[in-house]
Amino acid sequence: MKDVAYYNGKIAPIAEMMVPMNDRACYFGDGVYDATCAVNHVPMALDDHIDRIYRSAKLIDIDIPMSKEEMKRMLLDLVSRVEGDVLFVYWQVTRGVGMRGHAYSNAGDKPSIWAFVRPNKMRDPYGAYRCITLEDKRFFYCNIKTINLLPAVMANQRAEEAGCDEAIFHRGDRVTECSHSNVHIIKNGVLKTAPCDELILPGITRAHILAICKAQGIPVVEEPFTVKEMMEADEIFFSSSSALTCRIRNIDGQDVGGKDEKTFAAIRDAYQRELEAECGRH
Amino acid sequence: MKDVAYYNGKIAPIAEMMVPMNDRACYFGDGVYDATCAVNHVPMALDDHIDRIYRSAKLIDIDIPMSKEEMKRMLLDLVSRVEGDVLFVYWQVTRGVGMRGHAYSNAGDKPSIWAFVRPNKMRDPYGAYRCITLEDKRFFYCNIKTINLLPAVMANQRAEEAGCDEAIFHRGDRVTECSHSNVHIIKNGVLKTAPCDELILPGITRAHILAICKAQGIPVVEEPFTVKEMMEADEIFFSSSSALTCRIRNIDGQDVGGKDEKTFAAIRDAYQRELEAECGRH
Repeated sequence: MKDVAYYNGKIAPIAEMMVPMNDRACYFGDGVYDATCAVNHVPMALDDHIDRIYRSAKLIDIDIPMSKEEMKRMLLDLVSRVEGDVLFVYWQVTRGVGMRGHAYSNAGDKPSIWAFVRPNKMRDPYGAYRCITLEDKRFFYCNIKTINLLPAVMANQRAEEAGCDEAIFHRGDRVTECSHSNVHIIKNGVLKTAPCDELILPGITRAHILAICKAQGIPVVEEPFTVKEMMEADEIFFSSSSALTCRIRNIDGQDVGGKDEKTFAAIRDAYQRELEAECGRH
Repeated sequence: MKDVAYYNGKIAPIAEMMVPMNDRACYFGDGVYDATCAVNHVPMALDDHIDRIYRSAKLIDIDIPMSKEEMKRMLLDLVSRVEGDVLFVYWQVTRGVGMRGHAYSNAGDKPSIWAFVRPNKMRDPYGAYRCITLEDKRFFYCNIKTINLLPAVMANQRAEEAGCDEAIFHRGDRVTECSHSNVHIIKNGVLKTAPCDELILPGITRAHILAICKAQGIPVVEEPFTVKEMMEADEIFFSSSSALTCRIRNIDGQDVGGKDEKTFAAIRDAYQRELEAECGRH
């Protein structure tokens, strides 16, 4: 198939899949999601992503009505149906179907499982990326990967309109993360990244990067950093499961970073090798 | 019919209505909504609600693909199909159907129009309501009536679990609003209510209450008030298009208010008369 969608056991091409209007996704964004890339039909870090969606669901009281093993089998089955070397694998769990009402004691049906797989393109790991900065007006549940994503949608759109690749959020002075990735800086050979609190998503690629730094002897500081620190950093990059590591060379029209390629490249290349070891070359 | 749903021109019973998985409601909560009650098949303050959904849509760059007059006709048609003296009328506009991607320059299809009408019950206007307080962790777009409602869902559920009717949000000391209503206090004959900024929804019932106060010579102060001020107020009540005015007599297990029934009753009764004048008795 060219692509495939899944909803509570039904399977269809994405554009043909219909879901009940009364799924609480539709009225409240009442659900959580996760996503990763598959290379050569092997989803990257799939167990980590499955662990995270269970954590996200638990944080909003959703009890996922399938085991992690079943979820993995379901996703691998979908991946096997779609043609292409690089695929985007997306899935979400919502609180289920029922007449609209905020409280969910009597939400009725069990949680819904949604998924789709479609072809994707990897970002160029050697590219020079451009970003804008925006005040972070999101809620204080950013540690949960929910489908309440309107502020991220608006920010990403602003970045696209500015001819940029990502929007970097800051709360006042403090840099938090991007519209759908984490952001890190390198200064004097040290990697600095925001701590995992309610203001950022604990990225799986972020965690892999921290492990790589440890293995390579690159010191890591998990502390808030300011917009000014970012603008003056030796290197700045964003990371996500679909973007991997993207080196930022321009923010708000100003040239930035590019002063410690050696450290950035060590991280980027180690992560590329990890990906190849898990999924093979593409 | 017992109830009715509408999606981009299709009509069906709510529980049978299916929508495309690729509607951006499903992945991002990328839309806005409005809702009101209909009494004797007359939706309350319908023009006000239609004006508001156009304002909400504009604030997130959605250009509603029908005129206000067409929206009104569509809603009145739906209301006419459903049996019952008191109905809940709900409608939303989402950014439309397209392959998932945050930015929406190429979102493809035009915005989607959703609606449903179903029987409802009015809350007892003479009741004594119970509330809990919760830290307001929502985003800074609360002036827009979006379907990114997960924090409101969680808060309302907490209220229900506590045997209460609403959750009152506060940001630090400052009371903002409730999970799906505005909250007001009366002290020394003066009505105090939060100002319309990005922290609260500009409620239509709120606006009617302010007009009633003006007509009745009740002074109004639109300024932030604290949790302490609320706990010590003479009267406290929440308001919304489906709750009308609900007098709060207990917050977090503590008896509150009840010290200026005359002023509260003047507002409540004037609003009931307004409703009767518009929709007839029920």
